[in-house]
Amino acid sequence: MQYQNDLFLRTLNKEAVERPPVWLMRQAGRILPQYRAIRTKLSGFVELVQTPQLAAEVTIQPVDELGVDAAIIFSDILVIPEAMGLPYELIEKKGPFFPNTIKTATDVNKLIEGQNAAEQLDYVYDAIEATVKGLDGRVPLIGFAGAPWTILSYMIEGQGSKTFSKAKAFLYKEPVLAHQLLEMITNTTIAYLKAKIRAGVAAVQVFDSWAGILSPAQFQSFALPYLRRIEQAIEGTPVILFARGAHHSLKELANGNNALGIDWTLNRTNVRQTVGSEVVLQGNLDPCFLYSNEESIRIETTNMLNELGPRHIANLGHGVYPDTPLQNVKTFVNTVKDFRYSTN
Amino acid sequence: MQYQNDLFLRTLNKEAVERPPVWLMRQAGRILPQYRAIRTKLSGFVELVQTPQLAAEVTIQPVDELGVDAAIIFSDILVIPEAMGLPYELIEKKGPFFPNTIKTATDVNKLIEGQNAAEQLDYVYDAIEATVKGLDGRVPLIGFAGAPWTILSYMIEGQGSKTFSKAKAFLYKEPVLAHQLLEMITNTTIAYLKAKIRAGVAAVQVFDSWAGILSPAQFQSFALPYLRRIEQAIEGTPVILFARGAHHSLKELANGNNALGIDWTLNRTNVRQTVGSEVVLQGNLDPCFLYSNEESIRIETTNMLNELGPRHIANLGHGVYPDTPLQNVKTFVNTVKDFRYSTN
Repeated sequence: MQYQNDLFLRTLNKEAVERPPVWLMRQAGRILPQYRAIRTKLSGFVELVQTPQLAAEVTIQPVDELGVDAAIIFSDILVIPEAMGLPYELIEKKGPFFPNTIKTATDVNKLIEGQNAAEQLDYVYDAIEATVKGLDGRVPLIGFAGAPWTILSYMIEGQGSKTFSKAKAFLYKEPVLAHQLLEMITNTTIAYLKAKIRAGVAAVQVFDSWAGILSPAQFQSFALPYLRRIEQAIEGTPVILFARGAHHSLKELANGNNALGIDWTLNRTNVRQTVGSEVVLQGNLDPCFLYSNEESIRIETTNMLNELGPRHIANLGHGVYPDTPLQNVKTFVNTVKDFRYSTN
Repeated sequence: MQYQNDLFLRTLNKEAVERPPVWLMRQAGRILPQYRAIRTKLSGFVELVQTPQLAAEVTIQPVDELGVDAAIIFSDILVIPEAMGLPYELIEKKGPFFPNTIKTATDVNKLIEGQNAAEQLDYVYDAIEATVKGLDGRVPLIGFAGAPWTILSYMIEGQGSKTFSKAKAFLYKEPVLAHQLLEMITNTTIAYLKAKIRAGVAAVQVFDSWAGILSPAQFQSFALPYLRRIEQAIEGTPVILFARGAHHSLKELANGNNALGIDWTLNRTNVRQTVGSEVVLQGNLDPCFLYSNEESIRIETTNMLNELGPRHIANLGHGVYPDTPLQNVKTFVNTVKDFRYSTN
């Protein structure tokens, strides 16, 4: 498929570009008045995720309003545990809650996996098709999934946690069962991402949101191999791996064909040195920086672009916070769009 | 003062020792049945903190029960904001809550600081004196405080937070006021730690629990200089700096006379290489590892001791979780106590 603006895909394909593409994690969300207008009419977040026409509408809003170089489908990483047999609710101000969690091998063996699970998510594929139609070739659409470790941690804990100590204890106490469950989540995620690609996404991002609470050894054993399997299974479509907090394993994370998302706690010059000049990096402005003023945002964004150099997709180091002033988000986007790589 | 067991202080003073000393962050707490027995008789955590005789009793329990090489006074980092004029409650299962928070310069200027604040904490100094008496020279007693950035973040947020985005936004929006407040907290913390030393603690640890949510630049500007000022002000008494998540600034953190606490997400071999063989490191077993079995704990603890080498205080990389099996905690402690450095 041809896009009027293919800067994002050319960057992922390591072609020469005049400037970095820019988009923001959570750009389809509360920062936009258009989103809030739709959201107040609905019973909740889950209704929005499950209504393809509305999900498509909010996915396209930031392309119209902010002029970003890519859209990302409005959805939730927790549709995977739901499709595997663990439904969840989103409790206002508290976050996700799973009435049933995984405790034993019996619980694991009851789960649905792979294609059988992925095919229950037609509302996601429908939303993608509606979005692609609505975007009409303006910019590419990104699909996403949670990483197996992050999904497992919700399946065990049943809700958010400061320490995820139950999930981590499960890895130490039941390593064989943990690997079995990670396999099942991986198979499901691969089937899910392939279906998303068939529906029209041009690239995928895998979010390992809780990578940072694992020790380096646990990350290497229980997280990284499954990220690698996903990346290898999705051949032909660019993959961005974003393992938040995995500062100890950047080299290994960059060791495939994937691009690498980086969080705001990483020193940019060090990361570039660690992974080399050919790896595409995505990130990493501190989302809190967008609470400051326009001049500071322009300076810091330009610093970021210079420090990371070419092979870079400009983004924040985490999802944009819902109460960020819209004007500051625009300043960030426009600073990137006004930037040019020097040609000598 | 002379101690029957001075392994901890000899290690901090970089003297030759036969094995690393061992203690656990949060060793005085729910892992011990003796602690739980006292706790159920009281209205809450704050009552225990504020009753010197009881605080002393629970401080000594792990020395009796676990045979650790140091005691740490049972207290709370949030006594400092309280002494500065911001009282707090501990809400069961939710954590600390401050009815009043810092929003403006007026709020900052109303705070009490330095000696005037520190002298309101007599119950802490009384608890230290009672503990020193109760320990009767068996092992040294550690005093502690929260780092200025961590204390500021509670003063702004008023409670725990996943992102501490309000506190971080304050740094970006009001940097001058933030530095003024950090100065005031630093002055108070220095007065407080000096009073603890006069009361009998033999070493102090400063906990920068929320260091990990700052960008490297913010950490260098708003956290590190104040840690350094505290370390320099407490001359003559060993200081352990523990900035959790500050993986980007280990070299700078180790660049004083202090020992360095390290969290479990750090690769031990890399840390030792980064800071050199002469810096005393404290940590860093993943607290979740103590949910596994005794054989695994013995192996992993020994790995840690070998990887970090001499100039090491064995500990976890975070506070021990309250539901950790006591037998596993003992296995950890005893593995360290059975270890010997090779002498050739």
